[in-house]
Amino acid sequence: MGIVGLGLIGGSLGLDLQALGFEVRGLVHRPVTAARALERGLVQVVSTDPAILSGCGLVVLALPLDRLLEPDPALLAALPPQAVITDVGSVKQPVLARWQPIHHRFVPSHPMAGTAEAGVDAGQRGLFRGRPWVVTPAADADGEALAVVRALAESVGARWLACTASEHDQAVALISHLPVLVSAALLSSADRQAAAVGGAALSELVRALASSGFADTTRVGGGNPELGTLMARCNREPVLAALAGYRRSLDDLDALLNAQDWPGLQAALEHCQRLRPDFL
Amino acid sequence: MGIVGLGLIGGSLGLDLQALGFEVRGLVHRPVTAARALERGLVQVVSTDPAILSGCGLVVLALPLDRLLEPDPALLAALPPQAVITDVGSVKQPVLARWQPIHHRFVPSHPMAGTAEAGVDAGQRGLFRGRPWVVTPAADADGEALAVVRALAESVGARWLACTASEHDQAVALISHLPVLVSAALLSSADRQAAAVGGAALSELVRALASSGFADTTRVGGGNPELGTLMARCNREPVLAALAGYRRSLDDLDALLNAQDWPGLQAALEHCQRLRPDFL
Repeated sequence: MGIVGLGLIGGSLGLDLQALGFEVRGLVHRPVTAARALERGLVQVVSTDPAILSGCGLVVLALPLDRLLEPDPALLAALPPQAVITDVGSVKQPVLARWQPIHHRFVPSHPMAGTAEAGVDAGQRGLFRGRPWVVTPAADADGEALAVVRALAESVGARWLACTASEHDQAVALISHLPVLVSAALLSSADRQAAAVGGAALSELVRALASSGFADTTRVGGGNPELGTLMARCNREPVLAALAGYRRSLDDLDALLNAQDWPGLQAALEHCQRLRPDFL
Repeated sequence: MGIVGLGLIGGSLGLDLQALGFEVRGLVHRPVTAARALERGLVQVVSTDPAILSGCGLVVLALPLDRLLEPDPALLAALPPQAVITDVGSVKQPVLARWQPIHHRFVPSHPMAGTAEAGVDAGQRGLFRGRPWVVTPAADADGEALAVVRALAESVGARWLACTASEHDQAVALISHLPVLVSAALLSSADRQAAAVGGAALSELVRALASSGFADTTRVGGGNPELGTLMARCNREPVLAALAGYRRSLDDLDALLNAQDWPGLQAALEHCQRLRPDFL
């Protein structure tokens, strides 16, 4: 097995697969990363030379989305033609469009197991246990290749889920990418309005009074800016649609407040209270 | 000392004040609450008769906002004229406007120590420790009464903070009430759009894929609907202003996505990442 990129997802996969008895080879970009990956035991063999993938039956592209969408020609040349290739990208339509013509045994997949950590020191045992592992095969996908990726996902304890790339991208726009924007806008507006309305005194007061509710609601908006930007860039249309729908929901609440329709507001909040457990 | 209402705040205060050696009397609405309060030891003496407040030097009105703003005439008649009176309401301008003409030693205050719990079983020891206790005295406030409330707050380990009622209400609109609406709109739009765009399949998918980020961002929006409605109703103008400002922040992010201004989006998210630690 080959893993391209040994960050959080690639490194965690290397640890779990070795524990299952597989020989795992890693391809990384920089010699310093290679040295650290060996030191941490993420893989048995590591190189910065794509030739290391020669002979691998399964190659996992655990690359950031931008590098996955503009792959290194040397990597492409080194991929074994008969190997099953999969990725771990968090947006699937552009990945499928880019990779389907490149390799006939490519299976687009997305193990949903993020943490706040990244890089060669982030990989950990058991990261995928109980987490969803979504695959979004094309209609004419190679059934055998799909079975190989399913076996990979289930061997590390993930929950296997199949859907179309379009369904995946709409779903993650709603439950993963939209929350980043909603949450970021809350941070910037609390800061901006406090300063605009009440100057330094109110700016200080909002900081002193913000409690766990504000902290929770702003957590993802205060997260990794590169990642947030990459998601929005690679999933722009579904995210814009999600944002438009969100603004309609906000308009509805605003209208209830403006009309002083308190039974209506309470009914809307009761609906939200009932909805939430389904998403947990 | 008298406490009117023995829910989360009133009950917790009763427990802490008794531990400090004070004699604490409780006034509640229903006999069954009185019995449970005694059983839990929230106060030494409890009654449904306002006459129990006779002789108290300090009375804490730990009532829900609506009952605080439309107080029972029997309660008003029983308040000792020389006692210091304070409240624990989470909105301050309407409370100050209502109570300043009623009692010359009224000090509006807001101990910010919520949990998800409510009712006579919610009170707990140490709830106020390290939490802000905000007072919003009028310009001509009785200095001695203010000192009594400060001693009360500090005796239970709270952090004393003074500001105007208007500053308080604007601050809580931004960091407490706005997040409820922002978060509720995320829940309702994820549900509504999934169903509208992809029917039952996408509705099921968003529920299966929602992870800790979605859970955190929607926590306060899925909370107590009565409380959310009461906050919006009693703090309507500041909340509407906060909502308008929030929509401008969201517009800004939307414009960056529409223009495909990825450096601009990244800069905006970097700004949010830098802002958040100040609010924690």
